[in-house]
Amino acid sequence: MISSAHRIRLESRSGRHTTNTSGLCPGYGQGNLIVLPKDAAVDFIDLCYRNPVFCPLLGQTPVGNPREINNKEIIHDEDFNITTDIPKYNIYEHGKLLSTKLDITDEWCGNHIAFIIGCSFSFENALSKNGLKPKHTLSGSNVSMFRTNILLNPAGIFKNCHAVVSMRPYKLKDIEKVRNISRKFRKTHGEPIDWGYDAVERLGIQDLNNPEYGDAIKIDDDEIPIFWGCGVTPQVAVQQVGAAISGKVMGHSPGHMLILDIKDNEVINL
Amino acid sequence: MISSAHRIRLESRSGRHTTNTSGLCPGYGQGNLIVLPKDAAVDFIDLCYRNPVFCPLLGQTPVGNPREINNKEIIHDEDFNITTDIPKYNIYEHGKLLSTKLDITDEWCGNHIAFIIGCSFSFENALSKNGLKPKHTLSGSNVSMFRTNILLNPAGIFKNCHAVVSMRPYKLKDIEKVRNISRKFRKTHGEPIDWGYDAVERLGIQDLNNPEYGDAIKIDDDEIPIFWGCGVTPQVAVQQVGAAISGKVMGHSPGHMLILDIKDNEVINL
Repeated sequence: MISSAHRIRLESRSGRHTTNTSGLCPGYGQGNLIVLPKDAAVDFIDLCYRNPVFCPLLGQTPVGNPREINNKEIIHDEDFNITTDIPKYNIYEHGKLLSTKLDITDEWCGNHIAFIIGCSFSFENALSKNGLKPKHTLSGSNVSMFRTNILLNPAGIFKNCHAVVSMRPYKLKDIEKVRNISRKFRKTHGEPIDWGYDAVERLGIQDLNNPEYGDAIKIDDDEIPIFWGCGVTPQVAVQQVGAAISGKVMGHSPGHMLILDIKDNEVINL
Repeated sequence: MISSAHRIRLESRSGRHTTNTSGLCPGYGQGNLIVLPKDAAVDFIDLCYRNPVFCPLLGQTPVGNPREINNKEIIHDEDFNITTDIPKYNIYEHGKLLSTKLDITDEWCGNHIAFIIGCSFSFENALSKNGLKPKHTLSGSNVSMFRTNILLNPAGIFKNCHAVVSMRPYKLKDIEKVRNISRKFRKTHGEPIDWGYDAVERLGIQDLNNPEYGDAIKIDDDEIPIFWGCGVTPQVAVQQVGAAISGKVMGHSPGHMLILDIKDNEVINL
């Protein structure tokens, strides 16, 4: 029998599923994607090591082979292909977004490596099961994501790179419960990095109603914004380092994630 | 035959060695110390996991036993005792520095755990061997250390905690060489987190001539300040969380490190 995770990947592959994956396949982990030429790989792995809250590395492909992930816990199926199994992709060159496409089979070449980074959608099911369903999943919209003024710890070519956060509104009284539940998901961003309206200023967010990625969401009077590390961070990093990377770079379209085979209650053991 | 690392620990134990350890035992790794009551240990380990550049965790003792480190690579000798083998200690309670002493045998109790954190002194020998001897080691003074406005990624009780950096002046032309050499020492802070005079402003450092810890050092006109993560960070964290930790907390006196048995060329494989 085909799992619901595998089914979404097949539907993404065939072009039938093209929308965001928040709230999809509850109980399964989800992953961010960044595809880099191999010359940038060593520095990128160091960037992940030095910034595990924003760039928690879950696995990678061999050079040039999009069909295999070195961490079998996260992808089981044998017909997997990272160039087709995500709903939507961003394509960059010299730090500029060239286009958004439903697959990257034409762009992938022999020197590419795909990296899978943990995604905060992986703990949304756990929040929901504890009576803390993220608001954006009620309406089927995408989570709000913002570029911050937090500088990543630099690693080789990756310097002067800014972190990205996702934001979910919750009541102030629930903050410790929200922290405790998400904390266990260390490899999918873990607990929030900051919260409250003073955090908006600390993070250098200009306008909470205009996220750089995803959809805006109303924050009620009795709610505060809570911010988590976000796996769109590597895509902002490749834009910021620009021509320091030669060749095409690809990522998922923010919110349009790789559905993993690993269950969320296994993610906490990664 | 007794190693030079073991000898310094014995001299620290007997009170014959009480000064800073920068430049001592070239070729050996060095470590920072934080001793916490066990109730704070889980959150502290998570703090290290989430902030590996500032708090690279190398090993720890069992609860209540100061004579054993779980990572045998870093300490070999059988008469080791973390409460005596460091030249000088800081003692805190409810976030306040109570005193500085040559040993903490009176303070250590059955619910304490000692954590060893990597120290940037571990890569100073590698810099020296490449013609980049840190200036403060020429005069035998301690490295300059500063509290920054960088907020650590929070972990449980450890929230609103600021990172500490060490600073070494180098010529601007040497920055990539300095980065490349220290980068390999991932578990002892790795490459610099920032550099140059604009970094001074970014990090919120008020006065480069008045370090919070260690000694001031002259920066010549053709030099820039270079900043690395510093293992004094956990001591600032325990001061910032104050009464959230019950019981005494101990650390090394900044710059007065635990000399490790591991060689610096082995540190890069940790």
